[in-house]
Amino acid sequence: MGARVAVAGASGYAGGELLRVLAGHPGFAIGTLTAGSSAGTRLGAHHPHLHPLADRVLEETTAETLAGHDVVFLALPHGQSGAIAATLGDDVLVVDCGADFRLDDAGEWERFYGTPHAGTWPYGLPELPGARERLRSTRRIAVPGCYPTVSLLALFPAYAAGAAEPDVVIVAASGTSGAGRSVKPHLLGSEVMGAMSAYAVGGVHRHTPEIAQQLSAVAEAPVTVSFTPTLAPMSRGILATCTAKAAPGLTATALREAYDRAYADEPFVRLLPEGEWPSTSMTLGANVAAVQVTLDERAGRIVAVAAIDNLTKGTAGGAVQSTNLALGLPEDLGLTTIGVAP
Amino acid sequence: MGARVAVAGASGYAGGELLRVLAGHPGFAIGTLTAGSSAGTRLGAHHPHLHPLADRVLEETTAETLAGHDVVFLALPHGQSGAIAATLGDDVLVVDCGADFRLDDAGEWERFYGTPHAGTWPYGLPELPGARERLRSTRRIAVPGCYPTVSLLALFPAYAAGAAEPDVVIVAASGTSGAGRSVKPHLLGSEVMGAMSAYAVGGVHRHTPEIAQQLSAVAEAPVTVSFTPTLAPMSRGILATCTAKAAPGLTATALREAYDRAYADEPFVRLLPEGEWPSTSMTLGANVAAVQVTLDERAGRIVAVAAIDNLTKGTAGGAVQSTNLALGLPEDLGLTTIGVAP
Amino acid sequence: MGARVAVAGASGYAGGELLRVLAGHPGFAIGTLTAGSSAGTRLGAHHPHLHPLADRVLEETTAETLAGHDVVFLALPHGQSGAIAATLGDDVLVVDCGADFRLDDAGEWERFYGTPHAGTWPYGLPELPGARERLRSTRRIAVPGCYPTVSLLALFPAYAAGAAEPDVVIVAASGTSGAGRSVKPHLLGSEVMGAMSAYAVGGVHRHTPEIAQQLSAVAEAPVTVSFTPTLAPMSRGILATCTAKAAPGLTATALREAYDRAYADEPFVRLLPEGEWPSTSMTLGANVAAVQVTLDERAGRIVAVAAIDNLTKGTAGGAVQSTNLALGLPEDLGLTTIGVAP
Amino acid sequence: MGARVAVAGASGYAGGELLRVLAGHPGFAIGTLTAGSSAGTRLGAHHPHLHPLADRVLEETTAETLAGHDVVFLALPHGQSGAIAATLGDDVLVVDCGADFRLDDAGEWERFYGTPHAGTWPYGLPELPGARERLRSTRRIAVPGCYPTVSLLALFPAYAAGAAEPDVVIVAASGTSGAGRSVKPHLLGSEVMGAMSAYAVGGVHRHTPEIAQQLSAVAEAPVTVSFTPTLAPMSRGILATCTAKAAPGLTATALREAYDRAYADEPFVRLLPEGEWPSTSMTLGANVAAVQVTLDERAGRIVAVAAIDNLTKGTAGGAVQSTNLALGLPEDLGLTTIGVAP
Repeated sequence: MGARVAVAGASGYAGGELLRVLAGHPGFAIGTLTAGSSAGTRLGAHHPHLHPLADRVLEETTAETLAGHDVVFLALPHGQSGAIAATLGDDVLVVDCGADFRLDDAGEWERFYGTPHAGTWPYGLPELPGARERLRSTRRIAVPGCYPTVSLLALFPAYAAGAAEPDVVIVAASGTSGAGRSVKPHLLGSEVMGAMSAYAVGGVHRHTPEIAQQLSAVAEAPVTVSFTPTLAPMSRGILATCTAKAAPGLTATALREAYDRAYADEPFVRLLPEGEWPSTSMTLGANVAAVQVTLDERAGRIVAVAAIDNLTKGTAGGAVQSTNLALGLPEDLGLTTIGVAP
Repeated sequence: MGARVAVAGASGYAGGELLRVLAGHPGFAIGTLTAGSSAGTRLGAHHPHLHPLADRVLEETTAETLAGHDVVFLALPHGQSGAIAATLGDDVLVVDCGADFRLDDAGEWERFYGTPHAGTWPYGLPELPGARERLRSTRRIAVPGCYPTVSLLALFPAYAAGAAEPDVVIVAASGTSGAGRSVKPHLLGSEVMGAMSAYAVGGVHRHTPEIAQQLSAVAEAPVTVSFTPTLAPMSRGILATCTAKAAPGLTATALREAYDRAYADEPFVRLLPEGEWPSTSMTLGANVAAVQVTLDERAGRIVAVAAIDNLTKGTAGGAVQSTNLALGLPEDLGLTTIGVAP
Repeated sequence: MGARVAVAGASGYAGGELLRVLAGHPGFAIGTLTAGSSAGTRLGAHHPHLHPLADRVLEETTAETLAGHDVVFLALPHGQSGAIAATLGDDVLVVDCGADFRLDDAGEWERFYGTPHAGTWPYGLPELPGARERLRSTRRIAVPGCYPTVSLLALFPAYAAGAAEPDVVIVAASGTSGAGRSVKPHLLGSEVMGAMSAYAVGGVHRHTPEIAQQLSAVAEAPVTVSFTPTLAPMSRGILATCTAKAAPGLTATALREAYDRAYADEPFVRLLPEGEWPSTSMTLGANVAAVQVTLDERAGRIVAVAAIDNLTKGTAGGAVQSTNLALGLPEDLGLTTIGVAP
Repeated sequence: MGARVAVAGASGYAGGELLRVLAGHPGFAIGTLTAGSSAGTRLGAHHPHLHPLADRVLEETTAETLAGHDVVFLALPHGQSGAIAATLGDDVLVVDCGADFRLDDAGEWERFYGTPHAGTWPYGLPELPGARERLRSTRRIAVPGCYPTVSLLALFPAYAAGAAEPDVVIVAASGTSGAGRSVKPHLLGSEVMGAMSAYAVGGVHRHTPEIAQQLSAVAEAPVTVSFTPTLAPMSRGILATCTAKAAPGLTATALREAYDRAYADEPFVRLLPEGEWPSTSMTLGANVAAVQVTLDERAGRIVAVAAIDNLTKGTAGGAVQSTNLALGLPEDLGLTTIGVAP
């Protein structure tokens, strides 16, 4: 029969992607779906592509509607996960796709989010050193942000190998679904088609401390991150160009070996053949990251590029991957690395 | 273990989509992959999104390389399927994604394709009246063209119910993958992004006689088709707006009932709730058609709109659906109606 | 110095395009700019591409702010033009980019717009038979809708020449700017990119009676129009595929001659060389329509295709073209037929 | 009457954009247009958007066809400009849109282009310190590359003010027209739509030494540049995110003042109001750069972002701007800063 799962926040893009992934997963039975202001409407009004689920009706997001499930996925606005999670028993696996439980440092949380820190849950990026063990025994998972997912997969092998100094510059281009379904003028199709724009420049994006925290943990030293997000004229996908100052004496061969080693057995990361560079089109709808790395000897910098689908490996697919681990299922159950292209 | 399948023409878009669908199908084992000028190269050079198959090497398309399979999918340029099919035994299921065996009428073939007619195979659109029976016992399948698939699904219920007169106007907008991977200047991204254009106007597109032939068969009378294809700035998807003169006395209720009846039990067609209209975004990567119909009483015309993914329901998914029937498998095995959106 | 012009509704897309065209026009001085809820904000907050005007502040739309101009362009929501126009003197040229004064028939207006009919002003499509004379002496201009502009330019020569019967089917694909700057979920970039969708199907779009009215006037007989608009993944442009039943005995040569005759001296319509078909990319930002026509003899239908930029020839450029006529300026002053491509 | 100008390489994207700009320029008369393999064809077959010039016939690119003009624009493949320029008299203004004469250092040229160095012409970016004087007296202009134009406009004020250390990271996203009209599979619309990809990573892009050379000249010290270009799903536009290590003690106020000072009187650069960030949609078809800068104090880096239209300010518009200077015309003659949006 499978574990019974609920999705809170099913009308948004993250919620819809969770349902797309869950509907094809043999280990889960889809239970209650909830929403905020859309409670009472048909799912098909929000996600007409989910044909078999289109007539499901969204309920309110309450302790009562979410009770009685084995797994509860939260795809709620930042700041709302803590209260609802507190109503769910310790035996329920709660998987938070929001930011609430990602940061270790309460001061950083307050600086970037402006509210009291709710706490810290195991960070759901299984590829990070030591992460799988933490995820296998947890009933609470903090799903990483989409930019941190792609940035960390691009850079952590360099830090794990001592190949990089703590000076990082990341410029990432995201599809518009990363902004969620918020109806704002600058997200209108007329505005975004045919245009690239920058936003949250200068270290103010909330994913900045999340990336720095995780890289610092791998490096076992504070890593400084200059992070600039940009908005690209596409619905899905993130391409992150990540550079770090190379450690003294680093060779191209040693760098390559570090990445080969890190990703030799990873089911959801593909280190591309040398000379090939990532495109988000390699990842659409798939739980996969495409990664490549090189050493720019003149500039003295490692340049690593990674691509993901922000909604799949960057949110819902990654969430299910960690959920599989927490439930003792095969990590790749119900997940594919094959994208839709062209 | 599953049936052993070969794909001839694996480097093109139809071939890549066949492999995407087949890789997720539990009843098939992927055998030989062949190509024309790309023989000898890695599949990953053409379809980097097919990560698990990326290191497969493409072979030549010959009788020898294709021998020893239970099913052979042909995704070859028009005119090349007949010769290779003749070398495959009658016990091999040959599924032709090209046009060679779609038309009944040799004169029409020669008029539109300019070469001798190769013959006629059972037409692989299971939703058409009587089609399933023909497909269940065949070892040769002519996969429909993408425009005919969507146009027929939009209109055949009207003709099956006697609701329409034989005067049809179809205007369809297709993503660029419908033109295949041909490297032509007008298909460059710089040219197609941000632009809609018309082509093959005035009844000269090769899918015109295919649509007319099938509608005439359903109507049991000659149906005249004015068909105009247009190129839309997207990779995948076809939206077909199809109008037919309403039969005298037709009511909106009777029209709706005709479509309800036609699609009540169809697993891969979704007649939308009244008031909702198809978008190709409901179908991306899915083996599904979204259909809606209305009666314009002032104009005296039925207007039916359908959306598909040209590569999935319009080619590879539809091909696998018919293959499932011919092999006695569940028709929906390995196929999903859930698309990738947004 | 030039005529002093005001733009009411300057924060929207039509208003922005009016300013883009007016800023390059040697005969005008840009005066007051007004808005509704955006009054008090900088123009640059809405139209950052209008760099030289970015610091202009938007005023309220009132009789007082609009007083003292030679020309007032109204780019207001439907239904708001009548009241404000009534406050402007008869000597002021009022150019309404809304629908309020386009329809002759009060019954049609009420059926499609649901409010009392405000009246009828000279229709600002100079290319129509007799239109230039009417526009040269007017102080009130009803700028045509974008779909009517492109549809009429595609089809009126056929009716002017008696080449077509009164049975018309139009399917048009529009960029999203045609929907204005309304912040609705289905217009989000995430929803529209990569997708074609249909809307207002079945003769219910408000441009339907406008097209029928003008074609009927040219044909001197009632013309029935089946019109289906679709939304394309691009910001600007309309491609209209327009078919009409051919008159008995019509030849391809006679049809071509009708179009050659209609457009031989038109500065803003380009009848393409035979064999070339319109793309909206031929028209981006230009006051031009690209037109082509053919006769589908098997289907017995004329197929005419036209492309425009919905904001330029379809709104602001067309408005300025008519304004030039009304002011006795050269019709092409400040207008270009050269688009931005690729 | 105006200066008589020829365009060599008129069938490509740079050539087409030159003609678009020149056609609206009151100081020029368009003379001979030449092409390579397209010689003998109509211009309209390549640039149907240039309606008034569509029937011009392209000639061969030879000394004879280019003789007799006051200005010759070269939009040729790299390496071809030197030979043809040598046939043009010293009194002819030769404006090379290719790379041949951009680099000072012959070693760098050979390293990146693999051919002998042709020489160095005055660099056509008037905004750089001292550039206007050099351009006012020249008969030879090397038009900058598109990535260098946008990167230099983003960063040079920081170096001119001594605000930045010589450690630069640039990640730029370009529309596909930057790759020219080369018919390569990865530039097909089906491949590029909906996708971001990286290429020429690791310091190997040919614009890297050009950026480094110019920044070093401004800084009067060697500047190291890590440059990564990416391909965005749009036809036109470059958004460059440029970071440089901040000089010790730099304050946000001092940084802002440096940019205010640099751009106070520049007609073609708009330093945005604080808090607004560039989008390529502010620049489409316009000879303008939109620039913004901030200081990321935690990361210790200046982050400057600039947007241009790669074909206009990045190529043809910039070329005409420098040409105006060299001819003693007003620098802004025939050029607009108003883009086409949305």
